[in-house]
Amino acid sequence: MKLVIGNKNYSSWSLRGWLAAKQSGLAFEEIVVPLFGEDWEKHQQQDNLQPSHGKVPVLWDGEAVVWDSIAILEYLADKVGRDRFWPKDAVARGTARAMVAEMHASYQALRSECPMNIRKRITGGSFSEECKQDIIRILTLWAEARSRYGGGGPFLFGAFGAADIFYAPVVSRLLTYGVAVPGFAESYMQAVWEHDWMQEWIAAAEDEEWTIQQYDTAQA
Amino acid sequence: MKLVIGNKNYSSWSLRGWLAAKQSGLAFEEIVVPLFGEDWEKHQQQDNLQPSHGKVPVLWDGEAVVWDSIAILEYLADKVGRDRFWPKDAVARGTARAMVAEMHASYQALRSECPMNIRKRITGGSFSEECKQDIIRILTLWAEARSRYGGGGPFLFGAFGAADIFYAPVVSRLLTYGVAVPGFAESYMQAVWEHDWMQEWIAAAEDEEWTIQQYDTAQA
Repeated sequence: MKLVIGNKNYSSWSLRGWLAAKQSGLAFEEIVVPLFGEDWEKHQQQDNLQPSHGKVPVLWDGEAVVWDSIAILEYLADKVGRDRFWPKDAVARGTARAMVAEMHASYQALRSECPMNIRKRITGGSFSEECKQDIIRILTLWAEARSRYGGGGPFLFGAFGAADIFYAPVVSRLLTYGVAVPGFAESYMQAVWEHDWMQEWIAAAEDEEWTIQQYDTAQA
Repeated sequence: MKLVIGNKNYSSWSLRGWLAAKQSGLAFEEIVVPLFGEDWEKHQQQDNLQPSHGKVPVLWDGEAVVWDSIAILEYLADKVGRDRFWPKDAVARGTARAMVAEMHASYQALRSECPMNIRKRITGGSFSEECKQDIIRILTLWAEARSRYGGGGPFLFGAFGAADIFYAPVVSRLLTYGVAVPGFAESYMQAVWEHDWMQEWIAAAEDEEWTIQQYDTAQA
């Protein structure tokens, strides 16, 4: 398997696809294509001949080409078994599926105002009302998951899984932009940040030489 | 099981959730809550006490509450078996999953310029460049699915499934706004439109008494 991803410092959807690949336990080669650079142009041209249409992340697996992080996660869950990604209990799993789906299509204000920027810390930024509402909604969902289903471990549904994979870039954003959060959320965010795979991704992001001006000047 | 949905004429995400419930083969009670009316206010207040947060569609199943159409579909697939929703072949399924994910989070221009309006036909409308690009992208994906995987029936991957459920509201939009499409797409759209469940939904939409001004004046 090959996973094509963007810059580790900036590409939040790539982080989701990469964590899903890690969670599968399958071996995969990662191909980093820095966004907006010369290689990105090439990737666009080559991948535009495919249904994936020049996006990242893209998973190549034999004849299969799967784009979009949620589809990559489900494709891998099909291969290695659902329980590796989703809670075993049907009620918990229903909530986890809904939280992942909501992350997949929502929180536009948070995503545009606070782009992921793993290595950066920004203090004293201000947030729009919409962005604050996004953050409150996310913290409410985290509280629900942690309190009702999180007994078996430090993650949203206990063990690390699909919901944590989808909210991991949010953890990074809240840290980068210095958002004050309640204690339960601080503990959860710490657990995500200290996870081995996150540490591996963060180290790689810090080593990257590319800087994308438009993201680095946001709220700076 | 209970499925809470919005107006059948306008609520495209409700149509997806409802078709998924039909596809599951399970019995369900449908609760129609007209968007923006008095009942909608009540639904908002009541459902805001739940993690589903006043959205539609919402599936209630015993202790489980599942919101967001893609999560509802997957929750039901967990219950009745994946093969009822997704292609059996892994390569086809990977493409189907990616197409559904892309529909779930994309095509903002098409969605905002051409809101679903089952019973209306509008001619001579004009479309923004972004909207045209959305339509071209969708037709490209349909062509890919129909030509590579559609041999076993008239739908995107042969038999009616998750991809058709997700693109059914697009079929309605293309018909409402009179978009010219190639022959293969016309045949596909006809197959979707004539599907028993779509006919049932369309008949109910035509019988609804509520009209939402803001949607009915778009491009009129």
